[in-house]
Amino acid sequence: MNKVIELLQSHRSVRKYKPDKVADELVESIVRSAQMASTSSNVQAYSVIAVTNPETKRAISAIAGNQQHVESCPVLLIWCADLRRSRLACEQHNVQMVSGTMENFVVAAVDVALAAQNAAIAAESLGLGIVYIGGIRNDLRAITPLLHIPELVFPVFGMCLGYPDQEPSLRPRLPLRAVLHRETYEDDEKKSESVEEYDRTTREYYIERTNGKHDTTWSREMADKFKRPVRAYLRDYLEEQGFRFDT
Amino acid sequence: MNKVIELLQSHRSVRKYKPDKVADELVESIVRSAQMASTSSNVQAYSVIAVTNPETKRAISAIAGNQQHVESCPVLLIWCADLRRSRLACEQHNVQMVSGTMENFVVAAVDVALAAQNAAIAAESLGLGIVYIGGIRNDLRAITPLLHIPELVFPVFGMCLGYPDQEPSLRPRLPLRAVLHRETYEDDEKKSESVEEYDRTTREYYIERTNGKHDTTWSREMADKFKRPVRAYLRDYLEEQGFRFDT
Repeated sequence: MNKVIELLQSHRSVRKYKPDKVADELVESIVRSAQMASTSSNVQAYSVIAVTNPETKRAISAIAGNQQHVESCPVLLIWCADLRRSRLACEQHNVQMVSGTMENFVVAAVDVALAAQNAAIAAESLGLGIVYIGGIRNDLRAITPLLHIPELVFPVFGMCLGYPDQEPSLRPRLPLRAVLHRETYEDDEKKSESVEEYDRTTREYYIERTNGKHDTTWSREMADKFKRPVRAYLRDYLEEQGFRFDT
Repeated sequence: MNKVIELLQSHRSVRKYKPDKVADELVESIVRSAQMASTSSNVQAYSVIAVTNPETKRAISAIAGNQQHVESCPVLLIWCADLRRSRLACEQHNVQMVSGTMENFVVAAVDVALAAQNAAIAAESLGLGIVYIGGIRNDLRAITPLLHIPELVFPVFGMCLGYPDQEPSLRPRLPLRAVLHRETYEDDEKKSESVEEYDRTTREYYIERTNGKHDTTWSREMADKFKRPVRAYLRDYLEEQGFRFDT
């Protein structure tokens, strides 16, 4: 196993940070690394907002379900799917941009995720910790004016950045055979077995980590998560932002 | 600049591969690295299919616009957004899964992209080259039976894997200030300037790389790309696969 793979496989989300600032040149190096990720047809359909203002971080922390680390991390990156720059480019050539397709939305959502993951790896290679904050999607209608998000921009997730003040244990993932298929997508029966195996692993992990207080399994967590709709305003919000899904 | 950041910032897409096989243990190491990427609430809403069968690769190559490297690469990974495993988990607890929200779709699309980007970095750290293949989305209705893709699974992109038989030059990205905003999303005027700067950079890059044959700019390319809808069947396809976007 080389050093890079070791780094990738030792990722854990960090939710407690030292007060030390993150030098601006590190943030720039991290975002430059993000920019070198692959991007669909060179569209580069994303932007990132580096938030350090304590009041803004506090407000976003409240929106994200009072996650203390969102407020206490020195830098909060907000990763946005962004078709606005593409539209600017079209306007320079008097072209009316077609932005109402699922395809364009998928391109932007994937582009921003590829870039962000490069940023996460770059940050971790510099001794920083990160955690993704999907909780900003709890209320994007509040995030939007706060960060002056314009049309055709969709803040997809946040990412805390800072020097770790904790050493969380590795969280076990699904067995390899649950996610890796050979030649074609394999049938459900095999997958069910690997889910059962993973249920045992996660149960042990939770019991050990919480001294027996948290006794559940992965499939139980999924059942709890998916039994009701969450963030059911999202499609409407995206349409308010000028995204459309007509075709 | 440390070695990891050097690796991230020296990414180029590889479209010509040596015939050498990629050992199965490398593929497994790459996918294990992918699995350690962050995932929304531990859902791990993705799967990856490793395709080595020459006929299957040839068929996918044709679908992806006759990209020769899709056929000639030793391993083609097909990255899928996957809510099917989550539904299996729900069924084990007699819970009817809510899968009709934009939120769940975004979670799966982001999850698969984060995992795939970790895989890309792992592969490159092993001396392999990669290129993302968005072209599989040209005709997912043909990909679906070919790879036995079931309901609640969406093949988002492919990724060729192999030992590089070319050394492409680095493709310049947008100026840092075009994508990195401070505290709030910044206004368009500043962005227009950086697009103009990037137009000059990309024009020089194309002219140099093609001995003057390809003379265009980034904004021109974007205007050409976005003036008509592409892959306009995608939303219908996704609904056929059981994804919904009601809320």
